[in-house]
Amino acid sequence: MPKSTRNSKKYIYLDYAASVKANPSSVHDEGVKAKKQLQNARSVVAVILGARPEEIIFTSGGTESNNLAIQGVVFARRGRGLPHIITTNIEHPSVLETFQMLRDRKLAQISIVKIEANGIVDPKKIRKEIKKNTVLVSVHYANNEIGTIQPIKEIAKEIRHYKKSQKGLLPFFHTDAVQAANYLDLNVNQLGIDLLSISGSKIEGAGRVGVLYKKKSVSLTNIFGGGDQEMGLRPGTENLPEILKFSAALQLVQKIKDQEAKKLTKLRDYFFHKLNHSDILENTRIVVNGDLKNRLPNNINITIPNIPSELLVIELSALGIMASAKSACKAGDGKVSYVIKAINKNIKETDGSLRFSLGRQTNKKDIDYTIKALSEILTKLKKWYIPTPA
Amino acid sequence: MPKSTRNSKKYIYLDYAASVKANPSSVHDEGVKAKKQLQNARSVVAVILGARPEEIIFTSGGTESNNLAIQGVVFARRGRGLPHIITTNIEHPSVLETFQMLRDRKLAQISIVKIEANGIVDPKKIRKEIKKNTVLVSVHYANNEIGTIQPIKEIAKEIRHYKKSQKGLLPFFHTDAVQAANYLDLNVNQLGIDLLSISGSKIEGAGRVGVLYKKKSVSLTNIFGGGDQEMGLRPGTENLPEILKFSAALQLVQKIKDQEAKKLTKLRDYFFHKLNHSDILENTRIVVNGDLKNRLPNNINITIPNIPSELLVIELSALGIMASAKSACKAGDGKVSYVIKAINKNIKETDGSLRFSLGRQTNKKDIDYTIKALSEILTKLKKWYIPTPA
Repeated sequence: MPKSTRNSKKYIYLDYAASVKANPSSVHDEGVKAKKQLQNARSVVAVILGARPEEIIFTSGGTESNNLAIQGVVFARRGRGLPHIITTNIEHPSVLETFQMLRDRKLAQISIVKIEANGIVDPKKIRKEIKKNTVLVSVHYANNEIGTIQPIKEIAKEIRHYKKSQKGLLPFFHTDAVQAANYLDLNVNQLGIDLLSISGSKIEGAGRVGVLYKKKSVSLTNIFGGGDQEMGLRPGTENLPEILKFSAALQLVQKIKDQEAKKLTKLRDYFFHKLNHSDILENTRIVVNGDLKNRLPNNINITIPNIPSELLVIELSALGIMASAKSACKAGDGKVSYVIKAINKNIKETDGSLRFSLGRQTNKKDIDYTIKALSEILTKLKKWYIPTPA
Repeated sequence: MPKSTRNSKKYIYLDYAASVKANPSSVHDEGVKAKKQLQNARSVVAVILGARPEEIIFTSGGTESNNLAIQGVVFARRGRGLPHIITTNIEHPSVLETFQMLRDRKLAQISIVKIEANGIVDPKKIRKEIKKNTVLVSVHYANNEIGTIQPIKEIAKEIRHYKKSQKGLLPFFHTDAVQAANYLDLNVNQLGIDLLSISGSKIEGAGRVGVLYKKKSVSLTNIFGGGDQEMGLRPGTENLPEILKFSAALQLVQKIKDQEAKKLTKLRDYFFHKLNHSDILENTRIVVNGDLKNRLPNNINITIPNIPSELLVIELSALGIMASAKSACKAGDGKVSYVIKAINKNIKETDGSLRFSLGRQTNKKDIDYTIKALSEILTKLKKWYIPTPA
């Protein structure tokens, strides 16, 4: 081989049509390097979930992961009668509306189980809905609005018992763990689940990608047509830079989650304590939404009667506090959250709910300031909005 | 309002559950700021395409944009009989396999029009396939493997004539412009199209997002269930950081595309000239794939008889040249590309095809080095692979 080319350290990238940077599916050295990085990230995530690398599918985010799990299981059953799927009435829209979409398109029968007044589903009620053609149960791990943690292991047990009694392999069990990933145990074997979704956009420092864990034995089909990426289940050039950020951030989360959970639980309970011991706030008859114990360490959700949510959010924002009226995905429509409605039937359109979700940077001073600000806002708005008790 | 809170410059983020950074759907100040940035990016893209901001949908990439266009039009027709859709036999897998998926799932009838030997489709042949229940024609703007540019305006004209003759609004016309975005005109009105896909991963400096342009009059449904983002057509938290990078990069591309096209056309034709004027290469009976004129400025695609593609890519890679055997999305399966097969029926599994796709950094020296390397590789491999002509 002539020295001119063989020994030089040349690098000429002539694969711009594949990707402006290296594409993990390319055969050349740069592609192989990218592929190795992708495999490494996949292994990191797999270890955290107690799964095998080939059970980890990278997607564009939590919404896509949930859609792939639900639509993918339904489509995998095509030609074998109308499949039946079960969920709860306080799931994230990416689950609940996907169920409704499949029903409207006559692609699935659906059952929506009502959760209890504390925002938690009764596993027995899930069990009751399972029938011969049930292919999937999808129950979120923790709620995005009220932070309640669902009894995933117990639901898994009910499903296992059903399958044993029927000597069958169905239904599969999916959990949307998007809100849980920062604080709760993600080991898929200990949870007893078949499919699990996570999203990078809810994890500090993580890239904007999602993950769907799919147990090897689960029949799932792709919902996009396209290339062979992600074991053929998610076509499209892999978003390698974001995937690498994601796996690193998830690794960090695993390291610090116990100490973070402990710290935030304290701050959260301090917030609740302060609510109960402030004159103004007490008189406003504030309601805490969702179970007080079985909830995410970082979630505070309250209803303040007679003051619209969006007004509260805007008033808080004017004082430098970024809180939320309800799920951002459904914000701005001026209606009461379906999650709050599910746990409080007497709620009126004018009863405002507020979600404060804490993070790594949150400290006690922030809570003190927030309580003070809330108190001021309520004093100001009281005259206009809160009628004198009869 | 007490000074303590009203006048302070406090900033407390308590919306971690919405997103670790600001979520454009949030109602608070940070959310509003993010929403404005998103609207601005949307307007930038709209202006480049000659569209309205509300006609621009951000997705996770080109694969999703193509799937949303095709599946979205098909699902929007549900309940009105089996829809018929038309495409060509050299589309990207995200179009071609989506067609096949919809056919396999009995959700659509499909027609796949064969392109001509030069890699370009005959608009009359598209016209012939249109029938009463045709809802969509999808033809890519430029091919990802052989770089041929399709006669989009002429196809649009045929469709317009058909619609006029029928006094109907269907079929809609979609083009996958992923490979075209760097060099060709993207004005949707001048092209006469209803739906157009672009991908950030093929544009230098752009974020990993996709765009689907959807003319206001086109009936399209979402393919994901979820939140209300992107006019309800693409649920999921918007990937704002990447969207901002995308709009800025597309703006730059528009500014420099004429000069880039001119420069790369020269380099491309210089490559072809060198191929024809190198002894070794000439004797190897190298075939240039695809029309020589109607092709992307940056695309070179050749077939070298009797040497497998992947071997060529690996040999080139060893010399520092990153080229491609075929579409990265389908690389690694060891088979001849379906695109090359479509224009060359006599091709054998052992006839290797190579794609060199040039970019902003490519210069004449790179081409000289590549020609030299190719010549060396062929000399080395000749003894083993190329049989003496009979």
